[in-house]
Amino acid sequence: MSKTITLDHGSGGKASHDLIEQIFLTRFDSKTLHQLEDSALLQIGDQKLAFSTDSFVVDPIFFPGGCIGDLSVNGTVNDLVMRGARPLYLSVGLILEEGLPLDDLKKIVDAMHTSAKQAGVQIVAGDTKVVPKGKCDKIFINTTGIGVLENNFDISGANAQPGDHVILSGTMADHGVTILCKQEGLEITGDFTSDSASLNHMAMSVLDKHGKEVHVMRDPTRGGVATTLNEIAASSKIGIELVEDDLPVRPDVSGACELLGLEPLYLANEGKMLLFVTPESSQNILEILHQHELGKQACVIGKVTSDNPGKVVMKSGLGTTRLIDMLQGKPLPRIC
Amino acid sequence: MSKTITLDHGSGGKASHDLIEQIFLTRFDSKTLHQLEDSALLQIGDQKLAFSTDSFVVDPIFFPGGCIGDLSVNGTVNDLVMRGARPLYLSVGLILEEGLPLDDLKKIVDAMHTSAKQAGVQIVAGDTKVVPKGKCDKIFINTTGIGVLENNFDISGANAQPGDHVILSGTMADHGVTILCKQEGLEITGDFTSDSASLNHMAMSVLDKHGKEVHVMRDPTRGGVATTLNEIAASSKIGIELVEDDLPVRPDVSGACELLGLEPLYLANEGKMLLFVTPESSQNILEILHQHELGKQACVIGKVTSDNPGKVVMKSGLGTTRLIDMLQGKPLPRIC
Repeated sequence: MSKTITLDHGSGGKASHDLIEQIFLTRFDSKTLHQLEDSALLQIGDQKLAFSTDSFVVDPIFFPGGCIGDLSVNGTVNDLVMRGARPLYLSVGLILEEGLPLDDLKKIVDAMHTSAKQAGVQIVAGDTKVVPKGKCDKIFINTTGIGVLENNFDISGANAQPGDHVILSGTMADHGVTILCKQEGLEITGDFTSDSASLNHMAMSVLDKHGKEVHVMRDPTRGGVATTLNEIAASSKIGIELVEDDLPVRPDVSGACELLGLEPLYLANEGKMLLFVTPESSQNILEILHQHELGKQACVIGKVTSDNPGKVVMKSGLGTTRLIDMLQGKPLPRIC
Repeated sequence: MSKTITLDHGSGGKASHDLIEQIFLTRFDSKTLHQLEDSALLQIGDQKLAFSTDSFVVDPIFFPGGCIGDLSVNGTVNDLVMRGARPLYLSVGLILEEGLPLDDLKKIVDAMHTSAKQAGVQIVAGDTKVVPKGKCDKIFINTTGIGVLENNFDISGANAQPGDHVILSGTMADHGVTILCKQEGLEITGDFTSDSASLNHMAMSVLDKHGKEVHVMRDPTRGGVATTLNEIAASSKIGIELVEDDLPVRPDVSGACELLGLEPLYLANEGKMLLFVTPESSQNILEILHQHELGKQACVIGKVTSDNPGKVVMKSGLGTTRLIDMLQGKPLPRIC
């Protein structure tokens, strides 16, 4: 590992994992932390709670489809939901750069308020720091959330079972391509919009009916679908086989990725979820997803195998198979 | 209010309060948030929890007596304790600047681990972001904590009662003067050391015996003792009368403040607490505090009056009285 922090360490991919393992897990000994789930499960008295934190440093702070405000609320809400928890409360920690226009701050806070309302969570605690001009970039937001597990579902990245169908709730890479085009000032033809959204109402309607048949839920953010699937394959010690032709990508997003030499599989999503479900429940769950605005394009993208434990492979239309590793190098800084 | 964010907005004083009231409280409607306590109290099932967040942007990141790592753990632990909660769990959100030496990160993470262990809290959730060089300053840390209220004590900034004694657990301004001298590269004679420490063991030993006699606990961080007392006077609608000669300040800290034209009453503390207690319990509580390393210099600095509601006044040795307002202007940026 290099002797200084590099952008790679923030990619959500291989370098991030190495940093977490070598610096944090060797020092912090909590078993809960070592599970590396989207949120920690805590037993307090007879309450089972989910607890999750995320900092947002996205650049630009306003982009088509959202801003750092809604992103920061939706991101933590989704991390709670992915453990099957109902999100209840959020804290907000703001770091502001001297000179940030108050009108920008108002817009961001308005977006947080609207997203929190939509998701049904309350913002109950906050903190604001200001640093001199040039010591941060406009605004960074940390949100930390508490959710409650009301049912005894066992949803975890370690619970994928051979035979499970892998469902993706919609198209890949919308957030990643939107931010990238904005960052680089690219004028690529296409109607790029971030998919930033809170998944809890959709996820809860699946769990209400099929909580026992859902083994894993994860939102593929930094590092994209490929990185998230690799994490699940490693935690569950199973293989994952994707069908290339079944991967949903908007044509303009796909075109932009080709132009930029990027794989949609590695680009961030901020309003999509992966579900690993029993093959028997798969069709019913798809039908539930299709009833939600956010899940209209949900589809099965692959299945879990006992072959190739810890690995993700992809079958092309021509019948060839290739290994899909987690994101390595080529970081996209400040995607969320 | 100015049209952009200024350093004043981060001072913890008057401008910070205006920002919170005008931008956040008008938009976020949670009753809990509107109470503006050190932590939010949440009822989940039959559990009463405290929830608190704080971001740390201190400059320099290493200073005599500590570093940003222990400061970030102690700060949130103390905010939980100040509501009478036993701190249980922390999340950690790191924002790292590209180029930060890994050795610095290791030292900081080690300090977090040690402080968490001392305080008896577990770090159970984390997140790491990296921003390009020049887009933040070395490292910013958010910690968010959950504590449990095991007793039905009613400790709040709104609960001060006329007649209460105001106890300060030790000397003022140690952290503020230490950081200021480091920031400015001042070579002032004195052994300046931050007081960064977790207060929970000391606070719990007071509450164990006198939980019903403690009306308010607060740690006077940004904005110092003066600002915190003003917040309490406003929330409790009472007056506070301080006795100037009873205010504990180390002689070298006092000397440095005189040299710099600063009031110790407005400088940050990171390991001190204010307690508002019934006059009958005051002596016993002082004895408990004196048994703790962190409380050896605890003393009564004033009392609560029904006169001057919402105001803090100070009696000098000569018998004159002056009004002590909350911090206004003259911000000390990045003190925590």
